[in-house]
Amino acid sequence: MKMSDLEEKIEAARGGRRAHLLLKNATLINVLSGEIYPADVAIYGDTIVGIGSYEAEREMNLRGKFLCPGFIDAHVHIESSMVIPFEYAKAVVPRGTTSVISDPHEIANVMGIEGITLMGEMAEGIPLDTYIMLPSCVPATEMATSGACLDARDLKGLMDKELVLGLGEVMNFTGVIRCMPDMLRKIETASGKPIDGHGPGLMGKDLAAYITAGIRSDHECTKLEEAREKLRNGMAILIREGSMAKNLEDLVPLVTSENARRCLLASDDRHPDDLMEEGHLDFILRKSVRLGLRPITAIQMATINVAEIYGLTNVGAIAPGFRADLVVLDDLESFVINTVFKDGRLVAKEGKIMPGIMSPRGIEMRNTVRVKSISPEVTVIRAEGRLAKIIEIIPGQLFTRAIVEPIAVRDGKAEADPERDILKAAVFERHTASGNIGLGFVRGFGLKGGAMGSSVAHDAHNIVVVGDNDIDMAMAAGQIAEMGGGLVIAQDGKILGSLALPIAGLMSDKGIEHVGKQLKLMRNIGRDMGCGLEDPFMALAFLSLPVIPELRVTDRGLVDVGQFRVVPLFGE
Amino acid sequence: MKMSDLEEKIEAARGGRRAHLLLKNATLINVLSGEIYPADVAIYGDTIVGIGSYEAEREMNLRGKFLCPGFIDAHVHIESSMVIPFEYAKAVVPRGTTSVISDPHEIANVMGIEGITLMGEMAEGIPLDTYIMLPSCVPATEMATSGACLDARDLKGLMDKELVLGLGEVMNFTGVIRCMPDMLRKIETASGKPIDGHGPGLMGKDLAAYITAGIRSDHECTKLEEAREKLRNGMAILIREGSMAKNLEDLVPLVTSENARRCLLASDDRHPDDLMEEGHLDFILRKSVRLGLRPITAIQMATINVAEIYGLTNVGAIAPGFRADLVVLDDLESFVINTVFKDGRLVAKEGKIMPGIMSPRGIEMRNTVRVKSISPEVTVIRAEGRLAKIIEIIPGQLFTRAIVEPIAVRDGKAEADPERDILKAAVFERHTASGNIGLGFVRGFGLKGGAMGSSVAHDAHNIVVVGDNDIDMAMAAGQIAEMGGGLVIAQDGKILGSLALPIAGLMSDKGIEHVGKQLKLMRNIGRDMGCGLEDPFMALAFLSLPVIPELRVTDRGLVDVGQFRVVPLFGE
Repeated sequence: MKMSDLEEKIEAARGGRRAHLLLKNATLINVLSGEIYPADVAIYGDTIVGIGSYEAEREMNLRGKFLCPGFIDAHVHIESSMVIPFEYAKAVVPRGTTSVISDPHEIANVMGIEGITLMGEMAEGIPLDTYIMLPSCVPATEMATSGACLDARDLKGLMDKELVLGLGEVMNFTGVIRCMPDMLRKIETASGKPIDGHGPGLMGKDLAAYITAGIRSDHECTKLEEAREKLRNGMAILIREGSMAKNLEDLVPLVTSENARRCLLASDDRHPDDLMEEGHLDFILRKSVRLGLRPITAIQMATINVAEIYGLTNVGAIAPGFRADLVVLDDLESFVINTVFKDGRLVAKEGKIMPGIMSPRGIEMRNTVRVKSISPEVTVIRAEGRLAKIIEIIPGQLFTRAIVEPIAVRDGKAEADPERDILKAAVFERHTASGNIGLGFVRGFGLKGGAMGSSVAHDAHNIVVVGDNDIDMAMAAGQIAEMGGGLVIAQDGKILGSLALPIAGLMSDKGIEHVGKQLKLMRNIGRDMGCGLEDPFMALAFLSLPVIPELRVTDRGLVDVGQFRVVPLFGE
Repeated sequence: MKMSDLEEKIEAARGGRRAHLLLKNATLINVLSGEIYPADVAIYGDTIVGIGSYEAEREMNLRGKFLCPGFIDAHVHIESSMVIPFEYAKAVVPRGTTSVISDPHEIANVMGIEGITLMGEMAEGIPLDTYIMLPSCVPATEMATSGACLDARDLKGLMDKELVLGLGEVMNFTGVIRCMPDMLRKIETASGKPIDGHGPGLMGKDLAAYITAGIRSDHECTKLEEAREKLRNGMAILIREGSMAKNLEDLVPLVTSENARRCLLASDDRHPDDLMEEGHLDFILRKSVRLGLRPITAIQMATINVAEIYGLTNVGAIAPGFRADLVVLDDLESFVINTVFKDGRLVAKEGKIMPGIMSPRGIEMRNTVRVKSISPEVTVIRAEGRLAKIIEIIPGQLFTRAIVEPIAVRDGKAEADPERDILKAAVFERHTASGNIGLGFVRGFGLKGGAMGSSVAHDAHNIVVVGDNDIDMAMAAGQIAEMGGGLVIAQDGKILGSLALPIAGLMSDKGIEHVGKQLKLMRNIGRDMGCGLEDPFMALAFLSLPVIPELRVTDRGLVDVGQFRVVPLFGE
């Protein structure tokens, strides 16, 4: 009779069988006891089997180094890295991340269940456990055309799948507190499982109602008082430090030794170049400690706290029976990652993934972009007044301002006015080739003599383009459609730069280094064209998200978020 | 369309519907944030819907009082209270306990699955949530005859039942670390669920093996170093303070602000009179604080920490969406319980359960005692030597000592010698009427001129009797059998006192006050007969438990626990 896996591990733990690997003389970060002390750690197969003196086939001397559980990102949209999970892993695993709790909200808005499944398939064979919180809001609103719709029944069919933990960020908090039937049914499908919240600024009785419904975490706190109220009322607080939304500095004062167990770290959205240059959770840990958190507390927030809140019983700590997901650190200040083990295997060293570690399965790409023919005529705006509503971008914020300005009119057409930094914005529906085009004006890009566009456009991910002339706008949109999605800059009828994102129009099929570099290049081109925004593609990506105030444009038209409806472009 | 329960609660939380009850001006113990502050708490139906100012149908002013989540006992054998769950609730609910995590190990050893089901049925309709950890070791050993045997398949059939949380204390740690197939199969049935440990003194590599198998809690620590090692290695530490086993004083120094989340409080076994006089978790909390724990930390250990370790998502804290299980306290020193709410209902006040609160279902009793005829002849011991092994009771400890002494012999029979405090001990198999009788000698009871017996005899719960003459021993055993189980003292051929325990031979069908009083009376009778033990029935109950060193007697004979086998009575 073949001895079972568990039996072998128990025998190794007892010392009756040689361990496979012994990590000797490490300084152990024990997130369970909150202590740091010298220890040897024995590993058999994919599992830690003992702390202490063991015989092993191989030994590694970690004298002078810290040994820490692999980091777990409490909330991430991998799609925001613009690369597939395989490439994402290449960036984050050498940074010490061995698990992520992902919400494939973006790809689900394009491809529905097929997208969720595809993300899962693409995450096979990589040294990064990719847990899934099921997207709860597909589509996010009725004011834009998404590529898919997931109702409670769809989610029910996925809820018990492997790696699925619960229900992803419930953005539609109005739907929850107003008891919209499908929203409550979705919550019901996740009964007893983790349900992530998304309640920016939500406080008082509306917050109580949202939590009463069963929503027990939030990663949208921007203010200390907000976070404190949410924590007191039963929410786990995911302190987010993404490329765009950075809440660490404001929220670090929340954490006390009494409540730290309910505080977690999350990246939410990080761009490929930030991942490559700054890092992932290692970066957030470094910054946390610099901002005053004790290293052990910060590490708990990126390991055991996440495991406990999301019900992961075998990761997040260094103890017998836990997965051998381990990070070797030089110190607890710089958080420079020396070595990473996943399931007992050395998978990364000195910032690089080990060769031959990953065995991704091939991806079958299908073009998800379906548009009606695009020409310069389709973005013409008939002037129906002298004054028009304009979306004003506020640098570094997702929030936009609604302003009203006189508009340049020629031959009955309302036109861009780059001297006053007024550009045209167009959103081309790209899922069903309906021909829907939403048009508007935008201030803040500063672009002169050209257009830029993207198929990364939250949450419906239609093609969004801004520019000062119809020819370049059509050029950019057409090129994006041609590539099956991506980012494009056009000038004088020529493509100046592009980054193809053929996977759902969200992710590249290329390496993360390439994507990061190309993205930087594109930003530089934008800058040369007068664009003063630090990240114009991020601004583009949020231009059509009709759930963040004040004014947005979707394929259905201009949306006044306060009124939660499509409004006329002209008039006050 | 009738508004669903959840919708009504959400609406009440938003303030759009009157709450049912508002607890005003309370000093809130927030175990989530670790803070204590003034607040009002709104309740709708069985659920807390908001903290703050609400309109409600009824208000209660709690000025000057503390409001705390209902206590949760992390590990208890209700059978040890010698009363049915209904009566148990009468004692513990007014003490602030609103949930218990019970292991019906005792009744399962008598009645198997039927016993587990019966305990569940008896717990219906009482204001005490009775979660179940399935007994993992029935029988506990092969060296005694139990009334039932539960294998992995039996447990699998029960694992997904309502209120079942996981696998109860795995006493057979040798079976685990030696990979006994049925033991590992039992652990496998609970994969991903809580599995309770029971590893007294277990440390080092054996502990690592035990934890590697998946066992993640322990309530048997007696020493600080032992508890520290277990905690560091991944176990939640249940600090136990029972009637017999008292570990609080030794283990309180374990608790730090860094590890407190992994420390829990448990009673394990508490006697009816202790429950009535000292209390339950209120007593343990009071003592914890007296021993130096911060009140908020101690309360966390009896509320949210238990909920988190056992995966209970809606109890253990005061926050929206949590069950309205609440305790009103006068202060955080005496822990005197003023009022208790269960599921939003006032269920106890000033130490008494509210009238009409409980609606127990009737119990159908069946006699579980089946013995072959008992007469004074059956306990006769043929002298087969001058020296015999004697079980020496050590006051206040479960541990016994094995000694060897010369034995009084008359007419070829080895007899008791009360002057030297050597009594005879007999264990009558009582499940299958096999006629098995195990005989031995015991020192420590001090009884003169009579016999005392019990059907509470861990873990097989046969009938155990000690005495200085065969007539009284047969009398006591016979009376126990006649009552369907219980405790008896006999002298000069007469019954001096008895307490019938007709439910599985473990629990009375009478009220807890009666049982407590009767038990005290019996102890006094024992004292009058020369018995110097504080609780002779406790000593009796453990006389036949062949897993605690050094010497025991079961229906199979005298057991040397070190050798783990039945040994001859005579000789050295």
